[in-house]
Amino acid sequence: MDPQDIQAILKKVWDRKMTAAVALEKLRHLPFEEIPYARVDSHRHLRCGFPEVIFCQGKEPADITAIARSILKRSDYLLATRADRTAFEAIRKASRRAVHHERARCVTVRKKAPPRQSGKILVVCAGTADVPVAEEARITAEMMGHEVDGLYDVGVAGIHRLLAAKDRISAADVIVVVAGMEGALASVVGGLTRSPVVAVPTSIGYGANLGGIAPLLTMLNSCAAGVSVVNIDNGFGAGYAAALMARLKNPA
Amino acid sequence: MDPQDIQAILKKVWDRKMTAAVALEKLRHLPFEEIPYARVDSHRHLRCGFPEVIFCQGKEPADITAIARSILKRSDYLLATRADRTAFEAIRKASRRAVHHERARCVTVRKKAPPRQSGKILVVCAGTADVPVAEEARITAEMMGHEVDGLYDVGVAGIHRLLAAKDRISAADVIVVVAGMEGALASVVGGLTRSPVVAVPTSIGYGANLGGIAPLLTMLNSCAAGVSVVNIDNGFGAGYAAALMARLKNPA
Amino acid sequence: MDPQDIQAILKKVWDRKMTAAVALEKLRHLPFEEIPYARVDSHRHLRCGFPEVIFCQGKEPADITAIARSILKRSDYLLATRADRTAFEAIRKASRRAVHHERARCVTVRKKAPPRQSGKILVVCAGTADVPVAEEARITAEMMGHEVDGLYDVGVAGIHRLLAAKDRISAADVIVVVAGMEGALASVVGGLTRSPVVAVPTSIGYGANLGGIAPLLTMLNSCAAGVSVVNIDNGFGAGYAAALMARLKNPA
Amino acid sequence: MDPQDIQAILKKVWDRKMTAAVALEKLRHLPFEEIPYARVDSHRHLRCGFPEVIFCQGKEPADITAIARSILKRSDYLLATRADRTAFEAIRKASRRAVHHERARCVTVRKKAPPRQSGKILVVCAGTADVPVAEEARITAEMMGHEVDGLYDVGVAGIHRLLAAKDRISAADVIVVVAGMEGALASVVGGLTRSPVVAVPTSIGYGANLGGIAPLLTMLNSCAAGVSVVNIDNGFGAGYAAALMARLKNPA
Amino acid sequence: MDPQDIQAILKKVWDRKMTAAVALEKLRHLPFEEIPYARVDSHRHLRCGFPEVIFCQGKEPADITAIARSILKRSDYLLATRADRTAFEAIRKASRRAVHHERARCVTVRKKAPPRQSGKILVVCAGTADVPVAEEARITAEMMGHEVDGLYDVGVAGIHRLLAAKDRISAADVIVVVAGMEGALASVVGGLTRSPVVAVPTSIGYGANLGGIAPLLTMLNSCAAGVSVVNIDNGFGAGYAAALMARLKNPA
Amino acid sequence: MDPQDIQAILKKVWDRKMTAAVALEKLRHLPFEEIPYARVDSHRHLRCGFPEVIFCQGKEPADITAIARSILKRSDYLLATRADRTAFEAIRKASRRAVHHERARCVTVRKKAPPRQSGKILVVCAGTADVPVAEEARITAEMMGHEVDGLYDVGVAGIHRLLAAKDRISAADVIVVVAGMEGALASVVGGLTRSPVVAVPTSIGYGANLGGIAPLLTMLNSCAAGVSVVNIDNGFGAGYAAALMARLKNPA
Amino acid sequence: MDPQDIQAILKKVWDRKMTAAVALEKLRHLPFEEIPYARVDSHRHLRCGFPEVIFCQGKEPADITAIARSILKRSDYLLATRADRTAFEAIRKASRRAVHHERARCVTVRKKAPPRQSGKILVVCAGTADVPVAEEARITAEMMGHEVDGLYDVGVAGIHRLLAAKDRISAADVIVVVAGMEGALASVVGGLTRSPVVAVPTSIGYGANLGGIAPLLTMLNSCAAGVSVVNIDNGFGAGYAAALMARLKNPA
Amino acid sequence: MDPQDIQAILKKVWDRKMTAAVALEKLRHLPFEEIPYARVDSHRHLRCGFPEVIFCQGKEPADITAIARSILKRSDYLLATRADRTAFEAIRKASRRAVHHERARCVTVRKKAPPRQSGKILVVCAGTADVPVAEEARITAEMMGHEVDGLYDVGVAGIHRLLAAKDRISAADVIVVVAGMEGALASVVGGLTRSPVVAVPTSIGYGANLGGIAPLLTMLNSCAAGVSVVNIDNGFGAGYAAALMARLKNPA
Repeated sequence: MDPQDIQAILKKVWDRKMTAAVALEKLRHLPFEEIPYARVDSHRHLRCGFPEVIFCQGKEPADITAIARSILKRSDYLLATRADRTAFEAIRKASRRAVHHERARCVTVRKKAPPRQSGKILVVCAGTADVPVAEEARITAEMMGHEVDGLYDVGVAGIHRLLAAKDRISAADVIVVVAGMEGALASVVGGLTRSPVVAVPTSIGYGANLGGIAPLLTMLNSCAAGVSVVNIDNGFGAGYAAALMARLKNPA
Repeated sequence: MDPQDIQAILKKVWDRKMTAAVALEKLRHLPFEEIPYARVDSHRHLRCGFPEVIFCQGKEPADITAIARSILKRSDYLLATRADRTAFEAIRKASRRAVHHERARCVTVRKKAPPRQSGKILVVCAGTADVPVAEEARITAEMMGHEVDGLYDVGVAGIHRLLAAKDRISAADVIVVVAGMEGALASVVGGLTRSPVVAVPTSIGYGANLGGIAPLLTMLNSCAAGVSVVNIDNGFGAGYAAALMARLKNPA
Repeated sequence: MDPQDIQAILKKVWDRKMTAAVALEKLRHLPFEEIPYARVDSHRHLRCGFPEVIFCQGKEPADITAIARSILKRSDYLLATRADRTAFEAIRKASRRAVHHERARCVTVRKKAPPRQSGKILVVCAGTADVPVAEEARITAEMMGHEVDGLYDVGVAGIHRLLAAKDRISAADVIVVVAGMEGALASVVGGLTRSPVVAVPTSIGYGANLGGIAPLLTMLNSCAAGVSVVNIDNGFGAGYAAALMARLKNPA
Repeated sequence: MDPQDIQAILKKVWDRKMTAAVALEKLRHLPFEEIPYARVDSHRHLRCGFPEVIFCQGKEPADITAIARSILKRSDYLLATRADRTAFEAIRKASRRAVHHERARCVTVRKKAPPRQSGKILVVCAGTADVPVAEEARITAEMMGHEVDGLYDVGVAGIHRLLAAKDRISAADVIVVVAGMEGALASVVGGLTRSPVVAVPTSIGYGANLGGIAPLLTMLNSCAAGVSVVNIDNGFGAGYAAALMARLKNPA
Repeated sequence: MDPQDIQAILKKVWDRKMTAAVALEKLRHLPFEEIPYARVDSHRHLRCGFPEVIFCQGKEPADITAIARSILKRSDYLLATRADRTAFEAIRKASRRAVHHERARCVTVRKKAPPRQSGKILVVCAGTADVPVAEEARITAEMMGHEVDGLYDVGVAGIHRLLAAKDRISAADVIVVVAGMEGALASVVGGLTRSPVVAVPTSIGYGANLGGIAPLLTMLNSCAAGVSVVNIDNGFGAGYAAALMARLKNPA
Repeated sequence: MDPQDIQAILKKVWDRKMTAAVALEKLRHLPFEEIPYARVDSHRHLRCGFPEVIFCQGKEPADITAIARSILKRSDYLLATRADRTAFEAIRKASRRAVHHERARCVTVRKKAPPRQSGKILVVCAGTADVPVAEEARITAEMMGHEVDGLYDVGVAGIHRLLAAKDRISAADVIVVVAGMEGALASVVGGLTRSPVVAVPTSIGYGANLGGIAPLLTMLNSCAAGVSVVNIDNGFGAGYAAALMARLKNPA
Repeated sequence: MDPQDIQAILKKVWDRKMTAAVALEKLRHLPFEEIPYARVDSHRHLRCGFPEVIFCQGKEPADITAIARSILKRSDYLLATRADRTAFEAIRKASRRAVHHERARCVTVRKKAPPRQSGKILVVCAGTADVPVAEEARITAEMMGHEVDGLYDVGVAGIHRLLAAKDRISAADVIVVVAGMEGALASVVGGLTRSPVVAVPTSIGYGANLGGIAPLLTMLNSCAAGVSVVNIDNGFGAGYAAALMARLKNPA
Repeated sequence: MDPQDIQAILKKVWDRKMTAAVALEKLRHLPFEEIPYARVDSHRHLRCGFPEVIFCQGKEPADITAIARSILKRSDYLLATRADRTAFEAIRKASRRAVHHERARCVTVRKKAPPRQSGKILVVCAGTADVPVAEEARITAEMMGHEVDGLYDVGVAGIHRLLAAKDRISAADVIVVVAGMEGALASVVGGLTRSPVVAVPTSIGYGANLGGIAPLLTMLNSCAAGVSVVNIDNGFGAGYAAALMARLKNPA
């Protein structure tokens, strides 16, 4: 809160242009006044170049259509995650340009190509069953304008498969590692690169995988520095975080 | 329950050498009669060539001395785990031959060298802080007559340290992997070897390591088949299980 | 990293056959160069005599058929786990020799009989409901060439059923114990045998069984040394680990 | 709430001996009126023949002395649990008859011998480290007048030790089973007896024992019917519950 | 197999009305009978005082019929729990006397009335939704020969409903308390009675009930001594344990 | 039964316009009424200020109808929660006035408008998916006579949306905050108001949301004083607690 | 800074008895004051109705003195919680008026008596060991101007003790219930009152109390509506929340 | 070992100012150096861009000195974390340049100033008690060459303190958010910025904070995209990850 603001109020009271009661009320909320609704909103739009995202799971088709329409009125891009066939149909009602990425469970709409960003992202994934989460990360980062490379099915039990791809690992500015089971891949990749690693545990596995808790703990305890973690199965979050990082590559 | 035994009882009743009441009582416990106390005990002694082990933690020094004396009366070997200086002094009262392995927190007594077993065991350990657990495993397996090689501080974040030792990994009949933090080492070693792997999670780490729960889950969910797991920090259990496996190498 | 390798690089630089820039690049990845893709792969094939395994759960039928075909091109054996009727049909497309073991939820293909291994495995199981997991372990170990004996429905609440089979317990080189509910069977069997015990907790039970966490903890805390544990319901993992152990019985 | 009570109130209103406002207030609390303070208290004293118990842990010595004096004013017996040397001294100030059972961490005062009850209780305990909890159960049940037999150090890893005592198991009316580690003993004993079993998990163990959670889950999931469970390390609770059960043996 | 039956056989042999060979045949299956995938513990009635019980959940109808037949060959009573309509039909194939108790999800067969036991059991239950578990306890205890009273829907939020029934509480030799939500009922009942209380947490509730973990912890931590606990939703276990306790009332 | 109704009866008795016998008949079920499998707490309105509420989930339609009838016999209001279409139909059998609030999953019956209470309640909710829980809270508080304002979809990731509504926050006497995901909204609202905040975590989210445990812990650990918490998804409980608080606004 | 004080300043400006410049100096730290390693929220009293509170645990004495001085510069009241002797001495350096409430582990400073509020608060507590948490709640509510009654040691195992105090329960506008062990007290009190109940679980207990998790779950799952919960051992939070509620009693 | 250093060596060989033999000696320890109980990863700087870091907790002083010497032989920088006074003295034996940052519990050695990196990092911290973790992050990022700004004690309960600093938030390329209690700060900051956020939960709090699990879950479930998480109290990991991200700002 700026002393000037308080000074202005006090001056009005001195000048008897504002009563003490009104002034008291103003002082109560003063610290928050400076974040008016509209300014922050446009600021957000400006700064991210990325529209709001629809998390479809548990939403009614009619709601999805309405939200999609509302976004597309103001934006050239739309990303919807956890989108099954029904959600896809709902978004199609808002735009015939809608594309369904079935493995990734995403729907995208692009009225034009997103502006190309400099940073390169590599999505590494441990097993075939982790691919949907990996694809969700890939689609998200691509929607945000990044070039994304995919290195799939390189679990640590056959570590040579991973080591054979060390050039692609070296070429990436940011790496997303997607792994279920015990999630050890994040540590091994983290030890091979100088780039930041975003790790995504998946709920793939059985028994003591505990719905993804096991790889989540593995990744949080990673002995390789430079690894940070997002929520279980949260491919979108990983792709988004990776894109925010990779964007730092852009010339100032 | 052997039909002959029942027949014998029934014959005695028929011959009126046993009353129905006595016969009923005998039939009630018959299934257990065949495991009399002494026979099983000597059987255990014979089959393992390994005396009982003293878990010192939480035991009174006087109790430790008494148990040690009792074991050494019938055995040429003694192994005591979780033994601090006080426990060591207590065992010294039972035998001047007692040796204290401080890092391993073990005390051993050997009246003679244990009979040499064929199988070779390798103990691999992720970080310096895991060494006490690794040493406990090593001492245990050595007391059971096995040759034990140690490969320490080879965490997966610098995986070349592990790969550089692939010959020693190949030479082992059984491998014990000791790791805290996220415990990913077990999966990587499991993917590099043909031998059974006994994994020991340790409570080394902080935050979401949860006292060893994180590496425990990692190891249970290992994507490398052939890995089985013992309790957190249980170096003794791992060394013992590894020795039972390695002993299968002995010529029949 | 071998000094000779570095020396060779340095010599080339001295001889101006390699620029400093190229040498720097080579030195950056040197520690990994020695594990080239093909060699490790053939090594794995050679050493295990066991092809990759298909975990069917969550895989598309078309993917299963493709993976099965790929494996059978290079291998005489195929094992697929968690295979329902649909998965079986998918594998049948790859081979008419495919056999469905319904209780075990496995599919096997054997172009010829697997080479007979020496070590004998016993699978012990606590209750009727644990049988599918036990059968998965049995099929796995048999596919790897071992003779497997099965001792089912011998829970500790009627311990005479277990004690009556002590000869079969004694005859085994490795024992797999499968138990749900409270999982106490592993401790009791572990106390009766000289052989290594691989324990498999199952998710059978209700209430505070917690999907298998209860018997998992029981088995990890077993007061009987020589017991190691695999993941909940992981019959395949237990059978595989047991086979790796039993194989040590083979004459060198 | 008895219709008579309501009738009595209504009659008073009809007779204008009670205003509607007073009657409304009475009706608000009527259901509870019938449990007056003194009656229940004396009833409790009468029915149990057992005074209140002092749980010493975390109580100030002066408070312990005061509570002990208050109890001994009205009672011939005093039981204090979790009592260290300081607590013992505090109780000695209230009575010179105080006896300290150090292993059991209990203090008892008996002005006269407790009336002998019919039911016999057996306390079975898995390992030496569980003895303090077992002794707490024993002392409690003895204070309540029961004959208590103790069968200690009979863990399931050497099951013949337990089977050898089957006569003592058969002779008991109620059995308390105390076990840490994995707690499998409760299931085995439960399968050998027709008497109710009260199981007490202890926090003895390490790693995934989780402070007693592992044996607690084991006992709750026991495959042997007739086993019920009390809190971790709660020897007092087990002894008390066992005594309430055994008391049913008393002739009516 | 009933002890009386064995006694009858033995008496016939003693009286030379039956040869040892015929008796042997009758007794040969005494400890257990192997049927495919099951090993019926026919010794249990002799050892524990009640024939084996069929837990139907997850069992194949054909297996249920086979086990039911095996039990009914040697027993006058059959109890099957977690029995839906299909399980009931399967048991009907073994006996036309089978009765389905739908709320309790139990099937019972009684060839004759069970011998009447002295001890009286009261089943108290907190909410309407807990009734199925309470009924399972009631049926079990009745099958074991006890008189069972039921006091349902007396949760502690309206405690006068419970206090109004204090005579029925006082009349019981053993009390089973069934409660979900927060499970506080066990503590309140435990404080009102002299009799042992067997508490059964149920998975009724939502959110942080955690499938019954919340009332389970409540009951284990009960401030009322004399309360012991069985597994979540385990009405059978509670009824069985209560019957073992109540049986102590029988004249010696 | 409404205190006013009882007062009216008592007044008639005082005025001798109604005999004690007739009044007794009217009041005879005051404490509770037994119907099969339920014991309706009819004294609750007098004691707690609101008639009993039906939690429909898991109840049989016939039971719901019976309980509804029993409540409506003595009360002008009925609230049923977790009510699907079937539950609604069941309540319609008891009263044609029943209204189904589908989003809130509630059914209400009002024979007359509830007496208007002074305190104003604001329900704030983080995301669209939390709305059903928020609506359950709103309906509950409205049934208890309070004016309720709703401020929905104001998650903390776009905090200006919340700050823009600070006047509505200031106007509320009690605030209910409903949030899933990470539940941070409760802390932010708690820091902006001088009114008590009732926080409701919801099970909305994925991965490590753990069915609502994550926001539950967030809310319990809130750094803003004045926040208290109810169970996961427990909109009813929040609305009820908020109404009890807001009622304090009523002139004495 | 007290709203009254600000109002007084504003009135002086209005009355031209104080210049805007002088007033600005007085108000300049209104939003917060930066001191090393802390940023005291001096706006809080205006916004939330009570000055900032110092949570002493883990704070350096010098920091505590500095924060205390900063608060007392603009406030007539100071409350510090989790304050041991050292923290008390640190606050004494800021004010000689500081009083140490040892059981409650609180320090208070009152330059003048707090304005008396209308609402009455009752703190109910289950056992003697819960008293420190109860006292923390009491001191907090008293500092906020409320009359607080205390009803201690009324655990549900002797429920008559609680029922005997029903008049004091009825007299309270808000009730704080403090309980460890299983925490059932909150449900019983919640069922007896029409006032809002704030429940505080404590870490008092052993074994499966799990450091307060058991009573926390009990209270969250309470079958009595109107109960909301604060963090384990959080007496301050309960007292603060209760005071915010009770303040609603004040005439508008 | 710095890539520049290797390049310098190679250049000298190319220029024939250094023989291959001398160069080999210099490079021979490149991948790692074995010292007792440790295997220093000297290749790490080349591979990952920063020399190995010493985690002092639980390491013997002699080991710390040896590892520090080994690192300083080939590196101009040393960072040691979780370093108390003893660890500091141990490092001083290896270098007199060692500096102890007591609040951060770090020791640093800089033979020269680290090369300045472009990216700017902001460390935001919720409470005074979180400062040590925040400082560990700051020191780490500064050692890696970044400019670091600190914004401390801006918890969400007084959100104006955070909003007042929005310019500093906007100026940061990467933001580290450190928070205990409920950890809501990460979500709020994440919603205010375009930059990637690395969240660090701390174990600060009490009761259901669960040693940091509560804020960890909060941060993983953050409704603000772009937030990734490191382990509890892992300030080093956050600073390191943030530096890897910020480094992307460097001109290519």
